[in-house]
Amino acid sequence: MKRLVMKFGGTSSADQARLDACAAQIAHQAADGTAIAVVVSAPAGMTDQLKQDVLRADEHNQWPDEGDAVLAAGEQINAALLAMALRRRGLKARSLTGWQAGILTDADHGQAKIHDIEAARLGTLIDGGTIAVIAGFQGLGPDGRITTLGRGGSDLSAVAVVAALKAQSCEIYTDVSGVYSADPRLAPKAQPIQSLSYDELLEMASQGAKVMQSRSVELAMAERVVLRIRSSFETGDDAFAGTQIDRQAGLERALVRAVSYSRDEARIMADLPADPATLSQIFKILSDADIQVDMIVQSPGKTAATSTLVFSLRRGDANQALDLLKNPCHNLALENIQLNRDMAKVSVIGIGLRSQTKMAHTMFEALFAQGIAIGAVATSETRISALVPSADVEIAVRALHSAYGLDTA
Amino acid sequence: MKRLVMKFGGTSSADQARLDACAAQIAHQAADGTAIAVVVSAPAGMTDQLKQDVLRADEHNQWPDEGDAVLAAGEQINAALLAMALRRRGLKARSLTGWQAGILTDADHGQAKIHDIEAARLGTLIDGGTIAVIAGFQGLGPDGRITTLGRGGSDLSAVAVVAALKAQSCEIYTDVSGVYSADPRLAPKAQPIQSLSYDELLEMASQGAKVMQSRSVELAMAERVVLRIRSSFETGDDAFAGTQIDRQAGLERALVRAVSYSRDEARIMADLPADPATLSQIFKILSDADIQVDMIVQSPGKTAATSTLVFSLRRGDANQALDLLKNPCHNLALENIQLNRDMAKVSVIGIGLRSQTKMAHTMFEALFAQGIAIGAVATSETRISALVPSADVEIAVRALHSAYGLDTA
Repeated sequence: MKRLVMKFGGTSSADQARLDACAAQIAHQAADGTAIAVVVSAPAGMTDQLKQDVLRADEHNQWPDEGDAVLAAGEQINAALLAMALRRRGLKARSLTGWQAGILTDADHGQAKIHDIEAARLGTLIDGGTIAVIAGFQGLGPDGRITTLGRGGSDLSAVAVVAALKAQSCEIYTDVSGVYSADPRLAPKAQPIQSLSYDELLEMASQGAKVMQSRSVELAMAERVVLRIRSSFETGDDAFAGTQIDRQAGLERALVRAVSYSRDEARIMADLPADPATLSQIFKILSDADIQVDMIVQSPGKTAATSTLVFSLRRGDANQALDLLKNPCHNLALENIQLNRDMAKVSVIGIGLRSQTKMAHTMFEALFAQGIAIGAVATSETRISALVPSADVEIAVRALHSAYGLDTA
Repeated sequence: MKRLVMKFGGTSSADQARLDACAAQIAHQAADGTAIAVVVSAPAGMTDQLKQDVLRADEHNQWPDEGDAVLAAGEQINAALLAMALRRRGLKARSLTGWQAGILTDADHGQAKIHDIEAARLGTLIDGGTIAVIAGFQGLGPDGRITTLGRGGSDLSAVAVVAALKAQSCEIYTDVSGVYSADPRLAPKAQPIQSLSYDELLEMASQGAKVMQSRSVELAMAERVVLRIRSSFETGDDAFAGTQIDRQAGLERALVRAVSYSRDEARIMADLPADPATLSQIFKILSDADIQVDMIVQSPGKTAATSTLVFSLRRGDANQALDLLKNPCHNLALENIQLNRDMAKVSVIGIGLRSQTKMAHTMFEALFAQGIAIGAVATSETRISALVPSADVEIAVRALHSAYGLDTA
């Protein structure tokens, strides 16, 4: 029997009209007798409200076990409301919380990892023609307490359920009609992408494309779960069928697949002694404080004994990083420390980019033609990124989208 | 080891300040090493919101199983928030949902009955010095689904937990400082009552006093659970210790204990043939429609062959009852059917009232002296009730409170 897992996010299920739209999508897929498990998030507004309640009660997040009991309620509510929406259409459906669905996690409250899914009962339920509507984002810890899986947890639930059910595929319904070659709000010529490899999607996610959290894509890759990312609002036979993510996709096509961006960047520059010890000490201090550093460029300084360090980091971490570097206790011998908080990062994503010098050259050229100052550049197998001033991000995305030939994909 | 169950209602725990006040009460009781289980309701506002969500999704209440998954979330959230409030005071506490607390019910969703509580684990938890904060109003059905217990369900949870834990007593914290001889908002001279029997409290509850639901009092009576109803807002040594409810209370005291009222009444009058068949048919039709009839008075009609029937019922049922009685299919031969929707009921509650004719006489006299028209009267072992116009209810309560000597109890 064909088994399908469908996942609906918070914006796709935020009110009764949208839950009805989800139910219509599910009914469409169920029409041929496919056994269906649905994973649903909480509406974004409800999650925000519950998070505020938790923050008021536990300002310093000391008690994530109790926080989880609060947060998990949102998905529990929405799963039941979606089950009712399905019943209004005359379908057999029932909601399941994480613990009812047999989703077992470790005890790491707030960011629990799924250990196992006791899926036998769930499989029997859906093979018997009942649509299971599972509350995403949550599970049952080893001590019988409710756990939550952290950001993007509902995607993770969905992928894990697919693996446990040995389902054929996983459809991730969202508020866009698939993965685009760039954010359509910034780049009007952005095109929907038919298929991507896990690597490409991972690279896009890590470069700010808000499609799926990396954890879920990694799990899908490890469990060989084929994903399809599609719109929960588009129906009908001529609707775009979404972007398929699997192992093979992307191997035979043009190199650059998409342009991503993140507005949430800052840059720190400093002069320092040209010895590796200082450099390693800097990044140890930052990493001890859980500050993630992204792009790092070291260049010769004004004298042979000094060098200039430029690195980028999340804007939210910038002030703390500056304080750490300036802290006299660390004795870092840095000079001319400068922070620029208004940076953004634009990236082009594809396969085998590092080996193609032309690819980097195209980026410099395109940004230069727009008069955009490039703060730093980094390349990997699957992307080339440039740090640019925040104000230029929109022009940069459009220019790159055009320069890499994506406007007419 | 001394075990105590404390229950906090929705108004007692509606926001963080009130949860803090609850935590202070709990800390006070826990100070001498008493093992404590707390049962908590959802804040009234949250329950209303969730009920609206359910009503929108399931207008005709066809799917109470899914409704329960929605409604139970409110108590789950509030239990976790209260556990956090206790931890802010440095106390050991953890929240438990109904299923985590081992509260097992039948499958009658929306109004499930508690079958059993697997309390061994709960007992070990609280004897070990952790305050258990249990989400009231909910349990686990035989099919592993979440159930709710219906109106007043949290009181029921509390009483059942007391019985299962063999706790010494059950303190019901509410927004008044105990049971009063009348509603203090209506009768400024109302006095707090030190102790009541289960029967008296039951009679008060059934006559509109919003203290505890009858089901919970009945369970307490059956399980011999001693209740204490007290204020969640009053603290300190000179605060009123609340009203104690037990078997013995009330046997040796003055007869009338309290005046209750319900504004929510309607009255139907009709002329009908003076034969018992018609009468029994009327009440069968109403009972088939789940319409509860309260006071019934039949008196001789204008001719020997007719009689006049007066009965009272809940205002919300009145239109449906009228439609049923007028429905020609039922062929009831009723004439002059009249509905008065603006009725209220005032009752005096005590023990052995029926045998005391003076007690009924005092009621007539007191209401008559105020010029209040009495629509119907009913008596039982434990109460005398009169149907009066809604507009007169306040004057009636005060007059009765005074006439039965309660002003200076």
